[in-house]
Amino acid sequence: VKTVGAFIFDQMTMLDVLAPHQLLGIHPEFQVVTIAATPDPIITDTGLKIVPDYSVHNAPDIDVLLTGGAGDMVGPLSNPAVIDWFRKAGEQAEWVTSVCSGSLLLAEAGLLDGYRAATHWAYLPFLAHYPQVTASDERVVRDRNRITAGGVTSGIDFALTFLTEACGPESAAMIQLITQYEPMPHGPNGHPRTAAPEVVAAVTERFEPLAAGLVAFYAAKAT
Amino acid sequence: VKTVGAFIFDQMTMLDVLAPHQLLGIHPEFQVVTIAATPDPIITDTGLKIVPDYSVHNAPDIDVLLTGGAGDMVGPLSNPAVIDWFRKAGEQAEWVTSVCSGSLLLAEAGLLDGYRAATHWAYLPFLAHYPQVTASDERVVRDRNRITAGGVTSGIDFALTFLTEACGPESAAMIQLITQYEPMPHGPNGHPRTAAPEVVAAVTERFEPLAAGLVAFYAAKAT
Repeated sequence: VKTVGAFIFDQMTMLDVLAPHQLLGIHPEFQVVTIAATPDPIITDTGLKIVPDYSVHNAPDIDVLLTGGAGDMVGPLSNPAVIDWFRKAGEQAEWVTSVCSGSLLLAEAGLLDGYRAATHWAYLPFLAHYPQVTASDERVVRDRNRITAGGVTSGIDFALTFLTEACGPESAAMIQLITQYEPMPHGPNGHPRTAAPEVVAAVTERFEPLAAGLVAFYAAKAT
Repeated sequence: VKTVGAFIFDQMTMLDVLAPHQLLGIHPEFQVVTIAATPDPIITDTGLKIVPDYSVHNAPDIDVLLTGGAGDMVGPLSNPAVIDWFRKAGEQAEWVTSVCSGSLLLAEAGLLDGYRAATHWAYLPFLAHYPQVTASDERVVRDRNRITAGGVTSGIDFALTFLTEACGPESAAMIQLITQYEPMPHGPNGHPRTAAPEVVAAVTERFEPLAAGLVAFYAAKAT
């Protein structure tokens, strides 16, 4: 049984990491543990309270490093103990993975230097602050042992892609059927390249205050 | 702001209810709270530890009743305090909703009598134990103020359908774009009607021990 270490933090967008927690966690070859900056419960951006299994100070060795993202990533990005743990855990892990803006954390720890990586569509400009990372607009990107994915709901696609790559298509098929993944069509509003312009405008406006902290974070790094 | 009361319990399949927690919780018109049988933390089927916001004994009035399911639903189904809370909360709520085998809980509380309802494909035979409920194999079913959905990953489709019905298509479009819901194709293994026979056989075998408790529960009810 391989251990997936899922990093969790206050104000996280929990679906990023909990969709893979569910899909990998029911697979017999994986056990998922949650790891936070401290042992205290964290509260997600929609108010869910999660008790971490470990903190970065007592986390076990992990085989798969996984992180999700958040609207405002500055908390974990600016925590040296967190970035240090990512660097060490990522160097030892068999797989280094992320969903949504979680790829910024991998990039900050240097784990994506020389790799192609995905992120939430609205956070591609932030990934561009790491010149050694090749940002991609694809939904799931595998580059050697790095697998990174786009926004929030792509965590399901990430998990099935990961299972296919790590265990083979039979594993992915079994988990797909158990979790009944046969998505309904919901029209073109899942990505700005196809969404209605007024929807893109409304959502872009909504992201601006959320991302203000990141703008300041990268401006300070550049000076 | 309307309150969504999400029921959580030990050994739950957390994605059922946490996908809607994420998608509805980021919508400005909704606040999601978690409600468990007792105030103690619950542990999901993949080992996630969640601290509930309320127990059924001190839960606030809710506008939207939401529950997910589990492989083995006997714990909550056989807990009179839980079923009693469902009955009262469901009678007062504006919307009564479920994902996955959570519809068995709504049915047990009598909340689906005279309604059409969905559930996880493998749990349709259990929903048939409620003769006043019309079980449906659709992914998301709306029947008046009841919205019920199929297995696990249908929680995202449930949430977007609910937003469309409760707030209009603009709300659903905004949340779809924020969460980048543009699923990748993963082939036919998302439902037994299209999946490879050997995948269906392997998964059916896996569900058997999980569902053994439910078989005994309904056998005892019938006598």
